[in-house]
Amino acid sequence: MENFNFYSPTYFVFGKGRENEVGEWINRFGGSKVLVHYGGSSAVKSGLLDRVKASLKKNNIAFIELGGVKPNPRSGLVYEGIEICKREGIDFLLAVGGGSVIDSAKAIAAGTLYEGDFWDFYCGKEVEKALPVGTILTLAAAGSEGSDSSVITHENGMLKRSAAGDALRPVFSILNPELTFSVPPYQTACGITDMMAHVMERYFTNTREVEVTDRMCEGILKAIITEAPKVLAKPDDYDARANIMWAGTMAHNDICGVGREQDWATHKMEHELSGLYDVAHGAGLAVMFPAWMKYVMSHDVMRFAQFAVRVWGCEMDFQHPENTAKQGIERWEQFLVSIGMPIRFAQLGAKAEDIPTLVKNMQLGNQTVGSFVKLTEEDVRKIYELAV
Amino acid sequence: MENFNFYSPTYFVFGKGRENEVGEWINRFGGSKVLVHYGGSSAVKSGLLDRVKASLKKNNIAFIELGGVKPNPRSGLVYEGIEICKREGIDFLLAVGGGSVIDSAKAIAAGTLYEGDFWDFYCGKEVEKALPVGTILTLAAAGSEGSDSSVITHENGMLKRSAAGDALRPVFSILNPELTFSVPPYQTACGITDMMAHVMERYFTNTREVEVTDRMCEGILKAIITEAPKVLAKPDDYDARANIMWAGTMAHNDICGVGREQDWATHKMEHELSGLYDVAHGAGLAVMFPAWMKYVMSHDVMRFAQFAVRVWGCEMDFQHPENTAKQGIERWEQFLVSIGMPIRFAQLGAKAEDIPTLVKNMQLGNQTVGSFVKLTEEDVRKIYELAV
Repeated sequence: MENFNFYSPTYFVFGKGRENEVGEWINRFGGSKVLVHYGGSSAVKSGLLDRVKASLKKNNIAFIELGGVKPNPRSGLVYEGIEICKREGIDFLLAVGGGSVIDSAKAIAAGTLYEGDFWDFYCGKEVEKALPVGTILTLAAAGSEGSDSSVITHENGMLKRSAAGDALRPVFSILNPELTFSVPPYQTACGITDMMAHVMERYFTNTREVEVTDRMCEGILKAIITEAPKVLAKPDDYDARANIMWAGTMAHNDICGVGREQDWATHKMEHELSGLYDVAHGAGLAVMFPAWMKYVMSHDVMRFAQFAVRVWGCEMDFQHPENTAKQGIERWEQFLVSIGMPIRFAQLGAKAEDIPTLVKNMQLGNQTVGSFVKLTEEDVRKIYELAV
Repeated sequence: MENFNFYSPTYFVFGKGRENEVGEWINRFGGSKVLVHYGGSSAVKSGLLDRVKASLKKNNIAFIELGGVKPNPRSGLVYEGIEICKREGIDFLLAVGGGSVIDSAKAIAAGTLYEGDFWDFYCGKEVEKALPVGTILTLAAAGSEGSDSSVITHENGMLKRSAAGDALRPVFSILNPELTFSVPPYQTACGITDMMAHVMERYFTNTREVEVTDRMCEGILKAIITEAPKVLAKPDDYDARANIMWAGTMAHNDICGVGREQDWATHKMEHELSGLYDVAHGAGLAVMFPAWMKYVMSHDVMRFAQFAVRVWGCEMDFQHPENTAKQGIERWEQFLVSIGMPIRFAQLGAKAEDIPTLVKNMQLGNQTVGSFVKLTEEDVRKIYELAV
């Protein structure tokens, strides 16, 4: 096991109707003038935004609204938000939405307390201070409600990049599974894929003897596999939605990643896909993850066999562990198909002839990506080809 | 799943040599004058206390030492600590030791900022403010390094009671598995039993559909079962000690308890045992937990069958689930024996004729204890008898 720090200070407020407490939570964390950040019209139409504003008013909290966050959130709105916060003396960011809204709010929160261009944080500078961010989550997927990171796409070149730092962890996150009842099946499945990928990026590691973390990864994956068909069959199954929602948070607050080297090559390859085609991140991951697995499996067959046996319940083939390892990848692909995910380029609208562009956009040069196997540009090209 | 709050703000600093950073961490959390609280001579002899003091001096942090915490920590030293803190203007508590030292430090931290008798918090008053507490853990067991609770025995009547509140969660906890190499086999096994019991108190619940939490509980138990024989066979097996240490923290920061009713009857029955005989808490739990299980198994046979199959790898007897359920309890008892724990009264030095006293000391009256099954005085007596 490697040395590590683990810090997840977010106050998680989970359950039915909890969004009505939002004003009390902002008070508790010292917010007095709030930017309420959200996406499209669904937060308005559903009445959620009205309930939020009622709670703020009840608690005498001043606020300004900034809607319009898009999936794969863009830099333009971040710049606008930073300007508003500086001008209006905002001291608290409230994100009402999914990962895109939360990531946009985090970028604004960091940028407001920074003299330079907020994009510096997305080019490798660590975020050391930011306005406090609270969230009301409406989509179980990205895990940004408990994570220390944020992903933004810069409109200048459509570069999709991430920033990180403890200051980006939300001070509180309100998770009401009922708010996800209206998420359509395809987005629900994209979210499920994203959270599973967050666990797997941490699971496939060269670090030995991290049994506690391994078992937590496997347990969370198994819970997702059990609950996913339930939410797709019955979108208002409260308990199933609740398990999926909490799994999404646990998948990405790094409790599944402590004490070990993590990979993240698949996320980087996917970022190029969703950058170029503006497809859903989860769908891109569904295409790229099995391809990555097939390419790297021989690096550690027993690790993949463990994944197959412990996560998917495959029988171990003790004479031919590679058969078990392969079976785990097949089961994962079958699961993705069963929840309606694409697993090949064409289903995603991606094209084989764009592979050189995708590889080029990664700007790898002579560097490598990933840690389980350090992938060169040539490796990345082959993995994209496996996904065609 | 039930509504819940989950809040674990402790900064966990895990790994080799990390205790040498303690001064930096106290600085980060605003401590300037520290009470260094510890137990017996082992922290001195091992050189740990010297390393701690060197780090404090290097960071220009003033400190006063207060040693002498005993297992099942007592109120007397808490009163002494509170007086020192008030007199000297202490603004930070550093606990160097195991759960007893940390619990004692938490009591002092709460009592220092309170006008009344600190014992009020151990009689049901919630702790709302306390001096910040940092810990350097030397024993993997109680989980106090990440928990919101503290257990103290009042010398007036030898009452063992617990206090709780978010303000009691340590601001940081330094976990270096090397510091546990010297823990003797019996105490190591007591710690393992304690952490397993912390998971099981949360696992046996009447709340339905908490699959994520179930799987995390099962995963942590399985990891402990795998790692326990390793630390006992080779006390300086770093990775095994590391897994056991982290499991102990995860077992009790409540990540295993969210969204569900918890039980805790066995802990309360054990507190009377260790109160009367001053035996190790873990040893008392090893005697009481299987007895409690045998008594309540029929309340939910399928829950116990799940425990047997998922945690212990038993084969499910689909025609007779009760056989599987019983097998799980047997496997747990066999495991306890294998790590050198007592499983009956006599092995603990407890006596059947004291059962009426044990029952009386619980002060249940017409109340019940536990939630999986609400136990009356009569039930409690029968469970003690099953443990004879």
